[in-house]
Amino acid sequence: MKFFEKLLIANRGEIAIRVMRACRELDIDTVAIYSDADKNALHVRYADEAFYVGEAHPSKSYLNMERIIDIAKKCGAEAVHPGYGFLAENYRFAKLCQDEGVTFVGPRWKSIKAMGSKIGSKQMMKDAGVPVLPGTDGGITDIEEAKKIAADIGYPVIVKASAGGGGIGMQIVHDEKSLEEAISGSQRIAKSAFGDATVFVEKYLIKPRHIEFQVLVDEHKNAVHLYDRECSIQRRHQKLIEEAPSPIMTDELRERMSASALKVAEASDYTNAGSVEFLYSQGNYYFMEMNTRLQVEHTITEFITGIDLVKQQIAIAAGESLQFEQKDLSIRGHAIECRINAEDPLNNFAADPGKILRYRSPGGPGIRVDSGIHMGYTIPPNYDSMIAKLCAWDSTRHDAIQRMRRAISEYIVLGIKTTLPLHYAIMNNQQFIDGNTHTHFLQEEHILKTLERYKRDEETRMQTLAGSFDQGKKVAAITAAVNTYIQQKKS
Amino acid sequence: MKFFEKLLIANRGEIAIRVMRACRELDIDTVAIYSDADKNALHVRYADEAFYVGEAHPSKSYLNMERIIDIAKKCGAEAVHPGYGFLAENYRFAKLCQDEGVTFVGPRWKSIKAMGSKIGSKQMMKDAGVPVLPGTDGGITDIEEAKKIAADIGYPVIVKASAGGGGIGMQIVHDEKSLEEAISGSQRIAKSAFGDATVFVEKYLIKPRHIEFQVLVDEHKNAVHLYDRECSIQRRHQKLIEEAPSPIMTDELRERMSASALKVAEASDYTNAGSVEFLYSQGNYYFMEMNTRLQVEHTITEFITGIDLVKQQIAIAAGESLQFEQKDLSIRGHAIECRINAEDPLNNFAADPGKILRYRSPGGPGIRVDSGIHMGYTIPPNYDSMIAKLCAWDSTRHDAIQRMRRAISEYIVLGIKTTLPLHYAIMNNQQFIDGNTHTHFLQEEHILKTLERYKRDEETRMQTLAGSFDQGKKVAAITAAVNTYIQQKKS
Repeated sequence: MKFFEKLLIANRGEIAIRVMRACRELDIDTVAIYSDADKNALHVRYADEAFYVGEAHPSKSYLNMERIIDIAKKCGAEAVHPGYGFLAENYRFAKLCQDEGVTFVGPRWKSIKAMGSKIGSKQMMKDAGVPVLPGTDGGITDIEEAKKIAADIGYPVIVKASAGGGGIGMQIVHDEKSLEEAISGSQRIAKSAFGDATVFVEKYLIKPRHIEFQVLVDEHKNAVHLYDRECSIQRRHQKLIEEAPSPIMTDELRERMSASALKVAEASDYTNAGSVEFLYSQGNYYFMEMNTRLQVEHTITEFITGIDLVKQQIAIAAGESLQFEQKDLSIRGHAIECRINAEDPLNNFAADPGKILRYRSPGGPGIRVDSGIHMGYTIPPNYDSMIAKLCAWDSTRHDAIQRMRRAISEYIVLGIKTTLPLHYAIMNNQQFIDGNTHTHFLQEEHILKTLERYKRDEETRMQTLAGSFDQGKKVAAITAAVNTYIQQKKS
Repeated sequence: MKFFEKLLIANRGEIAIRVMRACRELDIDTVAIYSDADKNALHVRYADEAFYVGEAHPSKSYLNMERIIDIAKKCGAEAVHPGYGFLAENYRFAKLCQDEGVTFVGPRWKSIKAMGSKIGSKQMMKDAGVPVLPGTDGGITDIEEAKKIAADIGYPVIVKASAGGGGIGMQIVHDEKSLEEAISGSQRIAKSAFGDATVFVEKYLIKPRHIEFQVLVDEHKNAVHLYDRECSIQRRHQKLIEEAPSPIMTDELRERMSASALKVAEASDYTNAGSVEFLYSQGNYYFMEMNTRLQVEHTITEFITGIDLVKQQIAIAAGESLQFEQKDLSIRGHAIECRINAEDPLNNFAADPGKILRYRSPGGPGIRVDSGIHMGYTIPPNYDSMIAKLCAWDSTRHDAIQRMRRAISEYIVLGIKTTLPLHYAIMNNQQFIDGNTHTHFLQEEHILKTLERYKRDEETRMQTLAGSFDQGKKVAAITAAVNTYIQQKKS
């Protein structure tokens, strides 16, 4: 039995291919869309059909809802998978799909909308009994009221844009005299970035960890969680390394946090796959937001649970019941994901799109690579800089780190700068090895030092590599020595 | 704690790299050896050190025991891993290692020797109470006695060389009048191939399955089995596709067979990793032989158990105790391995070494590739034709087959002919899908038909591919239609 005959993937790059892989395994025909910048992209060739959708700028192509729906209807696609980013958390798109009779592979539009507001969703979860960060209950209207609340919860506090994402409009405030200016500054930024000046204030946590729970809910009210992921290693609020499970997780904490995650899903009438993000600090956790879509880092959950999340998404969207209950699930081993971006970590993460001159991905036991790139491919400058996801699984966290190091050392991407050196440095950083991470990990001096050391090592390696043109000579010398030895022994 | 500081890998190709990967994850320095044919091989570059060992012919290089041991001692390698093939089951090499104070990563030489004789090991297992195929207890000396035994066990019977392997010297005999000629023929072949004319007769099974059990035994008498693998799909006694677990396995049968496998290990005073091979037919199983080394197909056991067999081998060789007991082990999901050989399955499996013009391995969830090849690499004609192992894991056998199909469709190896089309055909063959396989599966008409169908499909695909140069036109036409549609809707 097929869930759908044909499915359109409203995305590009590795995640488009990830969804198509699931479809191919489910015997579902796939439809790609592509912009001017993606005519030669792998996701276009991977699909059974491909349609041009518009100019390179996302607003003209991958965000062009009406056009995408029209392509879906014209080619007979019964369902649309939005991937992550672009239209994945746009409730208007989910609603448009529903109105036009195309199945949206994701939650109901009302759930997306409810979770789209940081203030609204926080209030909703507070009412449902889920721990939330202390702060203003709604948008700030009265600065004196804000000052009073900030004094109550204690400084430092953080000012956030309600409609925001990616850290835009966020400001940390350490004392009352800076509060007013921070609020008005954030309002200005929020207004221009999101067209909505609403900001709020909440407790700012020292060295918090980002821990999220994966949930799956079908349309028949069957809900499970698929355990936790720790995503504390971030740069400018963008995750860079994720691992599953969290290194600090205990059975007791997992029990409490997963119960909260399922409560969040229930309170928002959630269906399909979603991730409930918490901040954790000193034994306490607080609901941050729910990502109403597939996460980039769903891969590591797949590794430790053995559940294919994309296939589950498609099955749920087709109205299927979950084929397992919570008691059927268990964690095996530990998985880590490194996001490989076309950026130069030794040059302030400057984007470095361009042509890939040589490419060979790592392999062997416990390694998974998701990418949309190949030798000869030119990475366009128009989109997200993430070009591949490298995941390593092994039976323990220690072994997974060792394996990740090994895989990074095997990965050949020539022609562009990537974050591979940074990942190598982090995999060798003692604080990371000890599981001692938090969301400001990358800003701390020790990792900068590790990077500098990597830079020196890299120079040494390059010199060694240059020297290895004389490898023949070296080998000949050693071989001669061995020959002499054998002769001596024989005589 | 390191098991060893430095380890020499007495092998080449994918298995040399497999062992080096484990070493790199264990912080053990690696030493490669290479013949004239392998100067540019990946395993040479992967190693921390590499030494020339001799001319291309195996007897001058990868089988040159004394030279290999001398290199190991000269460069300070404390241990040698033999991989599979070459010296892996040569008890003289294991003994030489011991005599020279270098740790052999494998069983004791006496166990290798005991299992090296088909007749001797069969008798040993019969004595230990493990089911063996009815037949002559030793080498045939008296033809009348052989006739009597053959009549007792019933025709057909099979004549086998005691020192044999790879099917050399095997003959199936359907009636008494052919027996004498078959025996003398096998003796002749055995004499010239192995220098030992000893042959024996045993019951020939109709449509038997090849089912083997992986065992691990440390030097402190702790022994576990890591479940079963079905390796029935073979060509000329060479395995082509393996899966774990066997599709016909039941709890009760697994209980019995695994107990026999552990009995085999105990009776031969076995240590390290080994595989006990059985033939299975109509509810009965019979001990065939024990492979006293890492198997090519160890990968699929790693997938379903989560245990890294090479790391276990190294730990055991270092004298470590197993860190788990039988009760800690369990099976998760199902895994399949396809051996990718540089052969043309549409031209009687003619070897097709040569230069790889394009190479991209499959990725995404549940896929593992072990290979020693890359773009621009020229496969030498001197060695085994296997160039890569493609493994797929998923939660059920059905899903694993679907995933393998998907992975085969992604695999790009241009410049040489490979067995990928054959694997694609088998993954789509109804008898395989039904789990209805046996050791003569490939000789049956239905798979030839499937192959012919694949050949036709391939032609169609090529025509489609040729047509896809007009893809732009096709896309433009559809895009125009969509545009018209959108315009109509808007107006």
